[in-house]
Amino acid sequence: MSGEAEAAPFRHVALIGLGLIASSMAHAIRATWPEVRITGYARSAETRETAREVGFCNAVTESAPEAVAGADLIVLAVPVGAMGGVAAEIAPHLAPGAVLTDVGSVKQAVIEAVAPHVPEGVAFVPGHPLAGTEHSGPRSGFATLFQNRWWLLTPPEGTDPEAVARLTALVRGMGANVETMEPAHHDLVLAVTSHTPHLIAYTMVGVADHLRRVTDEEVIKYSAAGFRDFTRIAASDPTMWRDVFLTNREATLDILGRFTEELFVLQRAIRMGDGQQLHDYFTRTRAIRRGIIEAGQDTAAPDFGRGAPDQRR
Amino acid sequence: MSGEAEAAPFRHVALIGLGLIASSMAHAIRATWPEVRITGYARSAETRETAREVGFCNAVTESAPEAVAGADLIVLAVPVGAMGGVAAEIAPHLAPGAVLTDVGSVKQAVIEAVAPHVPEGVAFVPGHPLAGTEHSGPRSGFATLFQNRWWLLTPPEGTDPEAVARLTALVRGMGANVETMEPAHHDLVLAVTSHTPHLIAYTMVGVADHLRRVTDEEVIKYSAAGFRDFTRIAASDPTMWRDVFLTNREATLDILGRFTEELFVLQRAIRMGDGQQLHDYFTRTRAIRRGIIEAGQDTAAPDFGRGAPDQRR
Repeated sequence: MSGEAEAAPFRHVALIGLGLIASSMAHAIRATWPEVRITGYARSAETRETAREVGFCNAVTESAPEAVAGADLIVLAVPVGAMGGVAAEIAPHLAPGAVLTDVGSVKQAVIEAVAPHVPEGVAFVPGHPLAGTEHSGPRSGFATLFQNRWWLLTPPEGTDPEAVARLTALVRGMGANVETMEPAHHDLVLAVTSHTPHLIAYTMVGVADHLRRVTDEEVIKYSAAGFRDFTRIAASDPTMWRDVFLTNREATLDILGRFTEELFVLQRAIRMGDGQQLHDYFTRTRAIRRGIIEAGQDTAAPDFGRGAPDQRR
Repeated sequence: MSGEAEAAPFRHVALIGLGLIASSMAHAIRATWPEVRITGYARSAETRETAREVGFCNAVTESAPEAVAGADLIVLAVPVGAMGGVAAEIAPHLAPGAVLTDVGSVKQAVIEAVAPHVPEGVAFVPGHPLAGTEHSGPRSGFATLFQNRWWLLTPPEGTDPEAVARLTALVRGMGANVETMEPAHHDLVLAVTSHTPHLIAYTMVGVADHLRRVTDEEVIKYSAAGFRDFTRIAASDPTMWRDVFLTNREATLDILGRFTEELFVLQRAIRMGDGQQLHDYFTRTRAIRRGIIEAGQDTAAPDFGRGAPDQRR
């Protein structure tokens, strides 16, 4: 993708927050443009220490203002609820002409929290990479996380197109595809494809945990038949997800309402023994799966290639 | 596991139904005991033809009675709702001393449907391999599907222990671990770890499909953020799953009731902005995930090793 690397769109990238996404960005940027300076800051001293050990930044600083000094791209990679505070803290230290972006899973709330702090001469281009794993922290990043994934940008009207173009070039250099959309539409789409599924997975794992007639040991032992995929989702970072639900409340509650309505219809079909309705429903959902494989967002390998233990070492 | 193969516990295995599980059994048995004769039958002429092409049986017959003639192990590998009819059809043709088993995902209903037909001198040992992929049909089987997976046996009281021991030896030879349990407890455990998660996944995919403000194209494009895992589950065989819900109705409705109760609690926490409750809940569910990885029922590789496209070819 970046074999014949074009010139780096930024000289100096500052990462605020040094978790899975930020560390993967650092690895991915370095893989394409080793000349880019990368500075980083995280609130936790332990995270900063680990980031120094892993070594994906040129410098890990002891404060956010130090990290952003001289940077021409600043990336807010903290939980959505912390974006506003961090923006206020770094705002006076942003260089004119710099581009500010974020990687939050919710866009309207981040824009509301961050935009008021952005100084004249700095372009704010909100973003969201649709990539991740169930792991978190500075050790979990890897350079190929964004390969063939979507990175959504939601620039408010009037955003400098030059800033959007430079960020787009950076994102493409990390292997991702770029799409721009309205912040409100982003939040609805993500409520469907990500936020509600996560809440449901958390709930199902919680139910299994509470049930006294089935032991946790049994749940864990016999998880291969479907439950396992839910636990992966439900192992994601609790702080990040708390913030997602609190800040994308409206859309999540909207989709949750539809979900329970639909669940009750299927529940009734089970209770009434309506096999035809169940069969029709299950047949329709197969088509969506085929679409996802065709769109390259998953592989058709059975069971993600996990079928046989010896295939996965 | 079967490196120093013990003698094959059966001479001739008859498979009724030639889908994912049956074809995987044939591949797995042959890998360990190539001398075992395997015959097979499927109701659909197309399936029989495909099975002959793939060649995992010594003979694919044109009727179920022909397939079971002379077999000392008969495996019912058809949807749960079809078990009773098949058992009635083959019963007069079973050899004395033969062992009859099934691979259905529900055990009480299968026992009720099959046991009345089992002739004197034939031992019925109901079973359920906790293994599978989202693919179905005679081309989808592979020899390592059962490696390190659990195979639950639910023999009714008074079942010949010799028959259970022989089936256990066969299952272990295919690489699986064996556990026996009460049929009712099996159905409850599976309602938690498999049946309810599947219904929920089907429902969520259905919601996404119905939503008019978000297009199917968007759902498919942006599925990487959680939804993708649901679609895999929701791509499973519709007939098999219809039968599971119709025959494990009580336990599924029981667990579904708990699920909606719990979901309403989290939904309320979102509506009220109770971040502490959400954070506590999401923290507890992480522990279950760790247990599953430690129990060897999944790998800790990020995102099932799907993070980078070049890792999965």
